[in-house]
Amino acid sequence: MSDNRAIGVFDSGLGGLTVVRELVKQLPFEDIVYFGDTGRVPYGTRSRDTIRKYALQDEKFLLSHNVKLVVAACGTVSSVAADTGDNLPVPFIEVVSNSVRAAVKATKNKRIGILGTAATVNSGEHKRQILKLLPDALVSQNAASLFVPLVEEGWYKADDTVVLNTVERYLKPLLDEGVDTLILGCTHFPVLEEAIAKVAGSGVTLINMGEETAISVKNYLSQNGALCEGSEKGKIDFYVSDKADSFRKTASVLLGEEIDDKKVKQVNIGKYDEGCNN
Amino acid sequence: MSDNRAIGVFDSGLGGLTVVRELVKQLPFEDIVYFGDTGRVPYGTRSRDTIRKYALQDEKFLLSHNVKLVVAACGTVSSVAADTGDNLPVPFIEVVSNSVRAAVKATKNKRIGILGTAATVNSGEHKRQILKLLPDALVSQNAASLFVPLVEEGWYKADDTVVLNTVERYLKPLLDEGVDTLILGCTHFPVLEEAIAKVAGSGVTLINMGEETAISVKNYLSQNGALCEGSEKGKIDFYVSDKADSFRKTASVLLGEEIDDKKVKQVNIGKYDEGCNN
Repeated sequence: MSDNRAIGVFDSGLGGLTVVRELVKQLPFEDIVYFGDTGRVPYGTRSRDTIRKYALQDEKFLLSHNVKLVVAACGTVSSVAADTGDNLPVPFIEVVSNSVRAAVKATKNKRIGILGTAATVNSGEHKRQILKLLPDALVSQNAASLFVPLVEEGWYKADDTVVLNTVERYLKPLLDEGVDTLILGCTHFPVLEEAIAKVAGSGVTLINMGEETAISVKNYLSQNGALCEGSEKGKIDFYVSDKADSFRKTASVLLGEEIDDKKVKQVNIGKYDEGCNN
Repeated sequence: MSDNRAIGVFDSGLGGLTVVRELVKQLPFEDIVYFGDTGRVPYGTRSRDTIRKYALQDEKFLLSHNVKLVVAACGTVSSVAADTGDNLPVPFIEVVSNSVRAAVKATKNKRIGILGTAATVNSGEHKRQILKLLPDALVSQNAASLFVPLVEEGWYKADDTVVLNTVERYLKPLLDEGVDTLILGCTHFPVLEEAIAKVAGSGVTLINMGEETAISVKNYLSQNGALCEGSEKGKIDFYVSDKADSFRKTASVLLGEEIDDKKVKQVNIGKYDEGCNN
């Protein structure tokens, strides 16, 4: 059995490309349709209602491209609007539950840290899910609001003073709590993984949500006979809701390879719901 | 002659509150209606068409509140969509031209620097206006993309290492050019004024767009007999398009005084144009 339809992936912006990067590593033959809601990024500062509305539109857009599975590659949607994936006609995989399972598996001292955007941390979703699996875990979290802007500015190297000082400030309270496992709870954060690892030290396991999510997608597809048949590198179709000048630079940093921005199509995402919603 | 209608002020988010702060200083008796488009912030990363559409809606919203004058307290709108104010039934004052005039007046060596968001810098509008007034000026500019996130995170103090290192990195190319005048080309930046002054040194005059704009509003109103009659502190009505948890903290930092967030009203800004625009 096989299924040659593409995997659909969406995010509030370009952060989800770190998930695409992991999907390409683990499932190199699959086609991918990526939607980045760059016209309305960031979701993290929006109200819950707005985030749900946007997530539903993003899912609807991917379904219109006949995908076999939808990945919410967005920490915010996965934290506060994961239920928007409940009634889709295809499986829905989000980044929080997969990273939580990996963290619970990795920790030895049951002290788990989470770095995320403010919305992700405030939602408490990672914490709630960790305590469900490991009720005596000590969970510490911190909103690292400057990480996304740093990555988008291209300041992410592990020898950059501003980067290291910023990472230190956000990590300190978690390290003070003695965490041995740290969830990078935002899809932009893997770009800072080297700097974070340098500050955290070798005693702390970093959980990359993209990697864990890609493993979960791979498991689902293989267990359900839904892998594609091809043996050639799959193609990736990129869609965004607004295309700024900085798109290419940021997208390439996140994806880990150059993107030809002429191939990126712009869509009017607002129309992907029941009529006019002004 | 007098005019007791309020002054309307809009911005893509909360940065425009630094302009309100200066208006309150210079025109303490005037009422103000402020609209911050927090549901669609930031404008700086949007395309020109999107920015124009948003600016027109923001202006229409303020006009619906019977204001006597509209202030675009937004560097992005003032740089790339100032023409949206051309056909309003009331005067329109934006932040770029006023800060340019002040910079041209202040410089002695004709070397002027500009720090702004990427969109403001890329628009080249400050530079174009400076060269019109002072054709032999040497204009240097740099996009300081991390300043807004720093301010919104509450990291702005002049003894903060991350703040100072970031300011130094963005300022260095301008100081290397020998600028003696520096336009803070984004309404968030005055919050960082002390740190910027510390790095720039006493030989560099900083131009605060809010201050210059408030002077311009004051001049216009007094020259046209349109100041209000009152002698009591004016009231400020705050409207936003989305209200996130962090609103109060950020708004208070920018306004320079506490805001009671219960008094802030949320509006559906999308409806302020010709019907449905999905």
